[in-house]
Amino acid sequence: MNEFELIAKLTRTLPTNPSVLTGAGDDCAVLDFGLPEKLFLFKTDAVVEGVHFPPGTPPEKIGHKALGRCLSDVAAMAGTPDVALVTMGLPEHFDAEFVGKIYDGLNALAREHGVAVGGGETTTNPERLFISVALLGTVGRGKQILRSGAKVGDAIFVTGELGGSLAGKHLEFEPRLAEARWLAEHYAIHAMIDLSDGLAGDLPHLLRAAGVGAELLGRAIPISRAARLRAKETTSAKPPLAAALTDGEDFELLFTVAGGHAVRLLDAWKKQFHRLKLSCIGKIVAGRGVTLRDQRGARPLRADGYVHFA
Amino acid sequence: MNEFELIAKLTRTLPTNPSVLTGAGDDCAVLDFGLPEKLFLFKTDAVVEGVHFPPGTPPEKIGHKALGRCLSDVAAMAGTPDVALVTMGLPEHFDAEFVGKIYDGLNALAREHGVAVGGGETTTNPERLFISVALLGTVGRGKQILRSGAKVGDAIFVTGELGGSLAGKHLEFEPRLAEARWLAEHYAIHAMIDLSDGLAGDLPHLLRAAGVGAELLGRAIPISRAARLRAKETTSAKPPLAAALTDGEDFELLFTVAGGHAVRLLDAWKKQFHRLKLSCIGKIVAGRGVTLRDQRGARPLRADGYVHFA
Repeated sequence: MNEFELIAKLTRTLPTNPSVLTGAGDDCAVLDFGLPEKLFLFKTDAVVEGVHFPPGTPPEKIGHKALGRCLSDVAAMAGTPDVALVTMGLPEHFDAEFVGKIYDGLNALAREHGVAVGGGETTTNPERLFISVALLGTVGRGKQILRSGAKVGDAIFVTGELGGSLAGKHLEFEPRLAEARWLAEHYAIHAMIDLSDGLAGDLPHLLRAAGVGAELLGRAIPISRAARLRAKETTSAKPPLAAALTDGEDFELLFTVAGGHAVRLLDAWKKQFHRLKLSCIGKIVAGRGVTLRDQRGARPLRADGYVHFA
Repeated sequence: MNEFELIAKLTRTLPTNPSVLTGAGDDCAVLDFGLPEKLFLFKTDAVVEGVHFPPGTPPEKIGHKALGRCLSDVAAMAGTPDVALVTMGLPEHFDAEFVGKIYDGLNALAREHGVAVGGGETTTNPERLFISVALLGTVGRGKQILRSGAKVGDAIFVTGELGGSLAGKHLEFEPRLAEARWLAEHYAIHAMIDLSDGLAGDLPHLLRAAGVGAELLGRAIPISRAARLRAKETTSAKPPLAAALTDGEDFELLFTVAGGHAVRLLDAWKKQFHRLKLSCIGKIVAGRGVTLRDQRGARPLRADGYVHFA
C-alpha cells in the first residue's frame, strides 16, 4: 500500500462536522465559520531531513521550504495565507543557532506574504530534523478554486518551468499566491492544483476529481533550464521532457479554464506577470487518463510521478 | 539552551499581523478574523515514538493522545475545538493496519467532542512514528482564559489527581473541555493552563505571565492512586507528593479565581462534576516563585518539572 492508497483508505472514515465544506482530498481543507464574506483554508505540510532536503542544506532554505509548501497549497485554492504555526522535531544535541536560522528563512517568507507566525512547538525527533507547518488562510466565500471543476474542452495551463527542481529550486521557490489570486479574480478558473508530485503525478488528481481525461502536447510543456542541463551533463539522467513530467517539487500552478478564454488569458498574463512564463500545455477531454502527443505520436502517460513513499 | 530558553529566544522575533491577538506563549494562539461573537484558537502539538509513548503502545491510544493533547490546550483557553489536521511521519515499511488503528483512536476522541478531521498528510520519518496534530477551535469573543490573569489573593485550583500519569493515564486522559467551558461560563476565571509539564513546571508559567508568586499547601495537592502505588512498590520511586508535583502529562486544568469565590465554586463543582475531583491547592501571593507548605514547614519549590528536552 503506497501513500496514496493509504490516504484514500483513511479519508473514507474521517469524522466531519458542519464547519467542513471540503475535507481531505484537495490542496487545503475549506472551512465555514459563518463569516459572511470569507471561508477559511486550513493546511499542514511537513519537511523531513533526508526526505525533503539533504543533510547540509542551509538552514534558512529549510525554513523557506517548510512554509513555502503550505503557501503553495493556499495559492492553489486562490486564497490568502494568514497565520502559521511551526512544529519542530529536533535531533538530540541540536544547535540553537541552526534552529534560529531555520526560523530566519521561514520568517522572511512569512513577512513577504503578510503571514504571522503565531507560535508552535519544539519537541524531540532524535535521528533527524522534522518540521511540520500548519497554516490558516482565507478566501472569498465561493471564490475557492477546487481540484474538481475541470470540464471537457478546458485549456490546461501551467505557470513557470518544470523539472530539475532538486538542483535548487525546491529550496527557493516562490509560492504563486499573487498569480493565483489574479487568475481567480479575472477568469473563471475551473480547477487548480499546485505541482508537488510532478505534472504526470498531479494532473491525474485533478482529472480523477472531475471524471475527465487530458491530452498534453509534449512540445508545449515548459522545461526548466535545470532539467535540460542535467540531461546534457549526465548520460544516465532523464530526457528533459521526462524530467519536466516526473521530477516533482516544482510548486507551480496547474489550472484549467474554458478553451475559449485561453488566448485572452495568455495575453493578459504577459502584461501582468511578464517575468513568469505561462504555458497552455493541452486540453481536457472526455474519458480517463492522460495522452501525451509528441514527435513519436500519441501515447498514454503513466502517472508515476514523484511519490513521497517509494 | 533547553526547550524553554530556545522558545523564548525564537518567539521574540516572530512575524505578526492584525489577526493575532495572542501569539506564542499561551496554550493556543488567539486569532481575530472579524467574526462579531467569536475568536479562533489555533494549536499544534506532536507526539513522537520513544519520547511521548513507548514502542509497543496500542495504536488506538497513540491516536487518542495525539489529538487529546491539542484538545487539552483548547480546554485551557475555555474554548471549543472544531477541526483537526493530522500530519503523520511514518517509519519505512509501515503497517497500514497499524496506521488505521491510530486513526481509529484519534477519530473516536474527535467524534466524542464534535471535532472534524479535515485531512492531513502522511510522509516519511524513517526511524520512528511522529504525529503532529493541528487544531482549530473557537471561543466567545472576550471569553478566552489566558495564562496571564492571576491576581494576588486568588485561590489556585486543580482538577483531578496528579502524578503517575506514565502508568497509563497519559494515553487515556479525557481533555477537560466541558469542565473548562462550565468554569468560564459561571465564574470569573482569572488564569488557566493545562498541566503537561507537571504542577511544579507549569505553575511558574502562569506566575511569570502575571508577575506574581504562589503558596501551595502540600496536603491539599491531590495525589493520584498511580503515584501512591508506585511509591509503595519501588523504594527508588519518588515520594508521592514529589510525583504529583513533577511527573507531568497529567492534562488536568490549573486555574485561579478570586479567593472570595472559592467555597461557592467548590460547592457548585461537586454538584456539576461529582465524578471529577476539584482541589483548592493554595493561593496567589505577591512576589515571585512558589512556596510549598507541608509538615516540614515552608520551602521554595524548584521548577524542575518534566521538561520535554532533558
